[in-house]
Amino acid sequence: MSTRRDLDSITPLYSAARTQLDSRGIDLESVRAKLNTQAIEVPSWGFSRGGTRFGRYVDGSEARNVREKIEDAGLVFALTGVTPAVSLHFPWDGSREDEYKRIPGYLKEAGIGVGAINSNTFTPRAEPLDHRLRYGSLTNPDPAVRLASVEHNLDCIRIMRLVGSKTLKVWLPDGTNYPGELSFCDQSDYLEECLEEIYSQLRDDEVLLIEYKLFEPAFYSTAVADWGRALTLAQRLGDRAKVLIDLGHHAHGVNVEQIVANLARLGRLGGFDFNDRKSADDDLAVSSIDSYQIFLIYNALVEGELRGHLDLSRLSFLIDQSSHRKNPIEEVIESAAALQRAYAQALVVDRKRLADAQRKHDLVAADRILKQAFFEVPVHAVIQMNRHERGLPLDPIDAFREGGYEAERRSRRAADRPAVGESLF
Amino acid sequence: MSTRRDLDSITPLYSAARTQLDSRGIDLESVRAKLNTQAIEVPSWGFSRGGTRFGRYVDGSEARNVREKIEDAGLVFALTGVTPAVSLHFPWDGSREDEYKRIPGYLKEAGIGVGAINSNTFTPRAEPLDHRLRYGSLTNPDPAVRLASVEHNLDCIRIMRLVGSKTLKVWLPDGTNYPGELSFCDQSDYLEECLEEIYSQLRDDEVLLIEYKLFEPAFYSTAVADWGRALTLAQRLGDRAKVLIDLGHHAHGVNVEQIVANLARLGRLGGFDFNDRKSADDDLAVSSIDSYQIFLIYNALVEGELRGHLDLSRLSFLIDQSSHRKNPIEEVIESAAALQRAYAQALVVDRKRLADAQRKHDLVAADRILKQAFFEVPVHAVIQMNRHERGLPLDPIDAFREGGYEAERRSRRAADRPAVGESLF
Amino acid sequence: MSTRRDLDSITPLYSAARTQLDSRGIDLESVRAKLNTQAIEVPSWGFSRGGTRFGRYVDGSEARNVREKIEDAGLVFALTGVTPAVSLHFPWDGSREDEYKRIPGYLKEAGIGVGAINSNTFTPRAEPLDHRLRYGSLTNPDPAVRLASVEHNLDCIRIMRLVGSKTLKVWLPDGTNYPGELSFCDQSDYLEECLEEIYSQLRDDEVLLIEYKLFEPAFYSTAVADWGRALTLAQRLGDRAKVLIDLGHHAHGVNVEQIVANLARLGRLGGFDFNDRKSADDDLAVSSIDSYQIFLIYNALVEGELRGHLDLSRLSFLIDQSSHRKNPIEEVIESAAALQRAYAQALVVDRKRLADAQRKHDLVAADRILKQAFFEVPVHAVIQMNRHERGLPLDPIDAFREGGYEAERRSRRAADRPAVGESLF
Amino acid sequence: MSTRRDLDSITPLYSAARTQLDSRGIDLESVRAKLNTQAIEVPSWGFSRGGTRFGRYVDGSEARNVREKIEDAGLVFALTGVTPAVSLHFPWDGSREDEYKRIPGYLKEAGIGVGAINSNTFTPRAEPLDHRLRYGSLTNPDPAVRLASVEHNLDCIRIMRLVGSKTLKVWLPDGTNYPGELSFCDQSDYLEECLEEIYSQLRDDEVLLIEYKLFEPAFYSTAVADWGRALTLAQRLGDRAKVLIDLGHHAHGVNVEQIVANLARLGRLGGFDFNDRKSADDDLAVSSIDSYQIFLIYNALVEGELRGHLDLSRLSFLIDQSSHRKNPIEEVIESAAALQRAYAQALVVDRKRLADAQRKHDLVAADRILKQAFFEVPVHAVIQMNRHERGLPLDPIDAFREGGYEAERRSRRAADRPAVGESLF
Repeated sequence: MSTRRDLDSITPLYSAARTQLDSRGIDLESVRAKLNTQAIEVPSWGFSRGGTRFGRYVDGSEARNVREKIEDAGLVFALTGVTPAVSLHFPWDGSREDEYKRIPGYLKEAGIGVGAINSNTFTPRAEPLDHRLRYGSLTNPDPAVRLASVEHNLDCIRIMRLVGSKTLKVWLPDGTNYPGELSFCDQSDYLEECLEEIYSQLRDDEVLLIEYKLFEPAFYSTAVADWGRALTLAQRLGDRAKVLIDLGHHAHGVNVEQIVANLARLGRLGGFDFNDRKSADDDLAVSSIDSYQIFLIYNALVEGELRGHLDLSRLSFLIDQSSHRKNPIEEVIESAAALQRAYAQALVVDRKRLADAQRKHDLVAADRILKQAFFEVPVHAVIQMNRHERGLPLDPIDAFREGGYEAERRSRRAADRPAVGESLF
Repeated sequence: MSTRRDLDSITPLYSAARTQLDSRGIDLESVRAKLNTQAIEVPSWGFSRGGTRFGRYVDGSEARNVREKIEDAGLVFALTGVTPAVSLHFPWDGSREDEYKRIPGYLKEAGIGVGAINSNTFTPRAEPLDHRLRYGSLTNPDPAVRLASVEHNLDCIRIMRLVGSKTLKVWLPDGTNYPGELSFCDQSDYLEECLEEIYSQLRDDEVLLIEYKLFEPAFYSTAVADWGRALTLAQRLGDRAKVLIDLGHHAHGVNVEQIVANLARLGRLGGFDFNDRKSADDDLAVSSIDSYQIFLIYNALVEGELRGHLDLSRLSFLIDQSSHRKNPIEEVIESAAALQRAYAQALVVDRKRLADAQRKHDLVAADRILKQAFFEVPVHAVIQMNRHERGLPLDPIDAFREGGYEAERRSRRAADRPAVGESLF
Repeated sequence: MSTRRDLDSITPLYSAARTQLDSRGIDLESVRAKLNTQAIEVPSWGFSRGGTRFGRYVDGSEARNVREKIEDAGLVFALTGVTPAVSLHFPWDGSREDEYKRIPGYLKEAGIGVGAINSNTFTPRAEPLDHRLRYGSLTNPDPAVRLASVEHNLDCIRIMRLVGSKTLKVWLPDGTNYPGELSFCDQSDYLEECLEEIYSQLRDDEVLLIEYKLFEPAFYSTAVADWGRALTLAQRLGDRAKVLIDLGHHAHGVNVEQIVANLARLGRLGGFDFNDRKSADDDLAVSSIDSYQIFLIYNALVEGELRGHLDLSRLSFLIDQSSHRKNPIEEVIESAAALQRAYAQALVVDRKRLADAQRKHDLVAADRILKQAFFEVPVHAVIQMNRHERGLPLDPIDAFREGGYEAERRSRRAADRPAVGESLF
Repeated sequence: MSTRRDLDSITPLYSAARTQLDSRGIDLESVRAKLNTQAIEVPSWGFSRGGTRFGRYVDGSEARNVREKIEDAGLVFALTGVTPAVSLHFPWDGSREDEYKRIPGYLKEAGIGVGAINSNTFTPRAEPLDHRLRYGSLTNPDPAVRLASVEHNLDCIRIMRLVGSKTLKVWLPDGTNYPGELSFCDQSDYLEECLEEIYSQLRDDEVLLIEYKLFEPAFYSTAVADWGRALTLAQRLGDRAKVLIDLGHHAHGVNVEQIVANLARLGRLGGFDFNDRKSADDDLAVSSIDSYQIFLIYNALVEGELRGHLDLSRLSFLIDQSSHRKNPIEEVIESAAALQRAYAQALVVDRKRLADAQRKHDLVAADRILKQAFFEVPVHAVIQMNRHERGLPLDPIDAFREGGYEAERRSRRAADRPAVGESLF
């Protein structure tokens, strides 16, 4: 794939990038070295088809089970070189001991590592949680449901150890649809009690990530609705509890990059679920709607690392999107590439001149410095040069398409899953 | 149920209401007469369980099919006296000629009339629409999918005539998730062409209602995203095309009652899907979150009728909510009662003094006049008196609970539908 | 004003309230006693005219200076009996020692106490802050501006002691309009350093309230943008730092009553700036737009006190609104009355049955219990009975109008302030 | 300024742009030609300082009057070559006949043409409108205020003819702050009657642009709140009434580029007020917050022209921003450059491949085609080459700074306007 013709087309832009960075005293080689350390997790669930409450559509090529999801994750890693781990989700990825035990073999087969383990108390299941789970899990007024929900999380901790993960990620569906449905005091009491029980089972080298979300599936209130609530929970639990930011989980107008900086500074930034959105928690591909925001987030991360507030290599970076309309493998590759671009843009910001402009109230200069990094440095050529030198395809989407992977998967997987829609109703 | 004790408790409040209204020159008897003409449609689909994209939970008492949905609608009418018609949704309520033909019998059995017929091009179905429907129905770039989607709407027109409805309601799932997915020009061209074909099949006494929605299931753009777009479509089609307002289909901060007034004034207000929301299109029970807004909407309707802009008896008033956590029958009753309250409050506004305050820029007086109607006139006693005189239960929720209807339904219906959750994934 | 005829009209409703509460085991007398302890602060600045960035209009009757503002506050207290203190704002209410010293005399003259002291670093002033204040106060990259801003706050502490206040309230205009304008790390470093200096000067019986706001006057980022940021600042400072909630300072869709409950539970709820909004930080009269929300907030407060999370008598309750179009005195009275109504409604919630409904997942019952308190108990009659027994006018707005206060003020005050508009441009 | 060294640095990128476009069959020369026809109006009011309702700050260099505003507009045109006209605003730019008459001389002096004339009924003025204007202008319940507001617009038409403009732009502050303040029916009746009177005075070659806005300065309702309302007004008036889009006048989540396409298709797109925003109507510099959106808007415009829906040369493109913190001249230059970039990016979209991807439901390809135009074609080099060949400075901001224009203006203008803040309160 990485042909001479491709290289020819990027060489002038690569040279131009070098010239620009040289003139600003930025060392292209260390930018390239940092880019080569970037590591993003891919979601096992991202390789099935997403949908909305109105239904979803499968075309037969999607992964049907955890083995196939891990297989797809391995392919993305082989094509991009930037996604060395897959994050798992239970019970979606298994609900029995024998299922858990087969996962390490699948990972080895696919040549990929494991990322965070996601517990899930929102997918309906059979007894003993039954339909009472509709009223919440860790905040359910029924103690039996809370107990079962805690036990599911403890199961996930056991799975972590089985598969080699050090990170438990908790996103709760809990909340209320109506005023008066539950006392906010009880909601918090139940939640803290349950989380304490879960956290107490973690070992010293294990981390709990708490994810917040403004709304959905609950509409009137959400138990962990914002970073403030997630932070106070983390503070209560202990040092190994951190906050996880999903880009789509905020109200419109909220400045996410500022939250990134604040959490980093407080030592409580745990990681990201990356995606994009126009409307609500759309779970669209990274950078598809607000390309500047993801750059500004990486800008905050790069600055945070320079200031000693965080260590990028210890954060959990996950792509978390829902592929309704795009081939899931292609969409994960697309988002991984967008994250490479955003990181590269952040790395070529002229920080010395930026700090100077900030000191002088020179907002016009500050904007230009950011825009030069965003628009004018041809970072795509830099990324492609890195790919070339690592023997990766210059364009992983093209490589996926030319490799015939989708057709092969469809022919193999569609047997028991015809290409039709599935209705929620 | 309407016992002497109950009446005793409402009599003093009823008298107080009369005193207040008398002092403002408002005739209680004509208020009561208008309240007795209020007619709200209930949704057949509202008697099954709603859910979110994360799953849904059934408890076994829910209606399993169109016959049972109509049965439940009949019960709500019997208990409330205010919901004489049920709105149907296809293919949810049937997809074959023989299924359609049985509906009039079910309606007769249940003692209820029929309301609007809703076409549905968002529920995945088998060929020929198959998974290409994920890219839109009437705006799909594939002409075969557009054709099939038009034909479904023509089917619905045939159903209308079979069951005695005069109203076709079109809410489209169409839209895009990504910039560039579709040209907005093509989107509009396709849409208008298809709607013209559908509209051309309607008879002179039949009406097309066009519903708009800001987002969901599409996130980046929606083909009919706001009242402006729905209106321009209606203008293009003809006089019998009107706009339908779903309260949950707006951006935050949008003034819905103003849209009501504007559409009425333009002769294009077709009706409502009533519900409430805190976050997005939550489909919560009417008046559960913003009780003042629903009053203000009825206030605009009452004024619109007085000004000759509309005829309340010709609008389509539908409860459209999704009962995740409440018994669907109870929640429909709850919303019907909320709509009675809002209409009653609007009817007791002292319009003469209000107009006077408006002329004088007396905003403080204007607010007080609205708040007196909203908070101080005990309209619940007036509504109960009406129920009493019509031989209806004073409290229809109590009547439902005391009547043992839920348990009876569960024992009859749960046989083939155990009380567990259903996952979308 | 409190004539026999008025009493006659409320007596039947008052009796009905008693009957309803008796039947639920709620003691009307203790409800009335609690209502009589309610105490709300009024804002000195609320007695001038508000405006928007497009201009503002005065009519000549408005208070022109701190003495007249305090005079107006005294009148509101005399008419309502529920607003025993006035909150002051500097430098609006003075910028020189001799001005501060006259304030206790004005308070005595007006028969009103003092509430919180508000520092203000957003109103442009002369050197040494000059136009550099446009880039922030406590977060300004220029150390001279930060220092001057700290000193202004220390001045306010001195004023507190002069006038007898125990509360310093800090709302910051600080934020940025553009990405890159300031590093979020510097923003936080500067802010914390400055607040620590201010807090360190407070005595043990003095309290610092930190107010947050999503946006305005800065648009891209705000230094203290949400309750989470205000809370982490308070945690850093110490126990006497608390968070203040302004109802209009949130994104759409945020659940404010949940934040109330959370902050109370964490021991960090300091008080409120009460107002209402449809669009952004509109500063409209309390309960004018979302009457149900203010009830739900009081509901959380009443429950919080029952649970021991807070002591209502120690919170700072302030009306903070901007009277563009209503007479400021009338609008403050209107809001005070709305807060009485909301508190009364919260006090008559049947908490025993509500807790029972919550335990049983009976959401329909929970909603009805709240709605009975909100719509069906005639609390306005209870409030009027209290007023009657305390010798207050039954209707303070009527009393204001009948007393000729506005005309008297206009004739006295308009001399040097003709009734024209003032443009910002 | 356009030195050899500068050219050397852009030449490789310019060549790379040519190579990329050649490979896609896009003719660089016609792209460059189109870019050279781009014409943007600058706002006279944009050369003074903006502020918020909390105050504003001047530094002395700002234009003090219409002559200086036009002088500054001329400078921007000289430096950028892309802004050949200045838009005027009355009464800000004059309120007497003799003032109007001097404007043509100022324009000639500054070497700039005139754009649209903006009427203004929101800035407070003396009798006869006086403070009653606070309750609205064309929708004021007081007929005298409506009449005066109509007359102001007729004055503006006279000014148009005096100064050579063909466009009247009406943005109304009208709206209500409270439910009940005004009947929506009256609001619409008054508005239409007044606009008809104004429109009737326009000649056949004159155009009326109607601007909408979600909120501010009114908060509860706005008379012309969205494109739907502006459109129905334009429809009522006639063919020469069009809709104007200000980017900051929408609710969050609204798809503005779709509105652009819809209005163009309906023949009712009149033009733009360009700016950007994070929070509300922030009036920030173009592309400073959402750089992708402005590209998508230009993308819709370029497609609209190709489809024959509009003629770019006949639209009104105006920069409308409020410079709180940046030098106004610099900020206008910054926004003009951002609009050049967005147009250039839209012109290099590979539309043939895009249409093909849309037909095939290939969303991944569609996204890549847009992103290539946005990120990968070095359009800044193309724009600079155009500037070079037209003898313009390669970087107009640098040219402004190096030219000493700000210092010269401050020394000349600050005499009667010291560098201090001005408070609204």
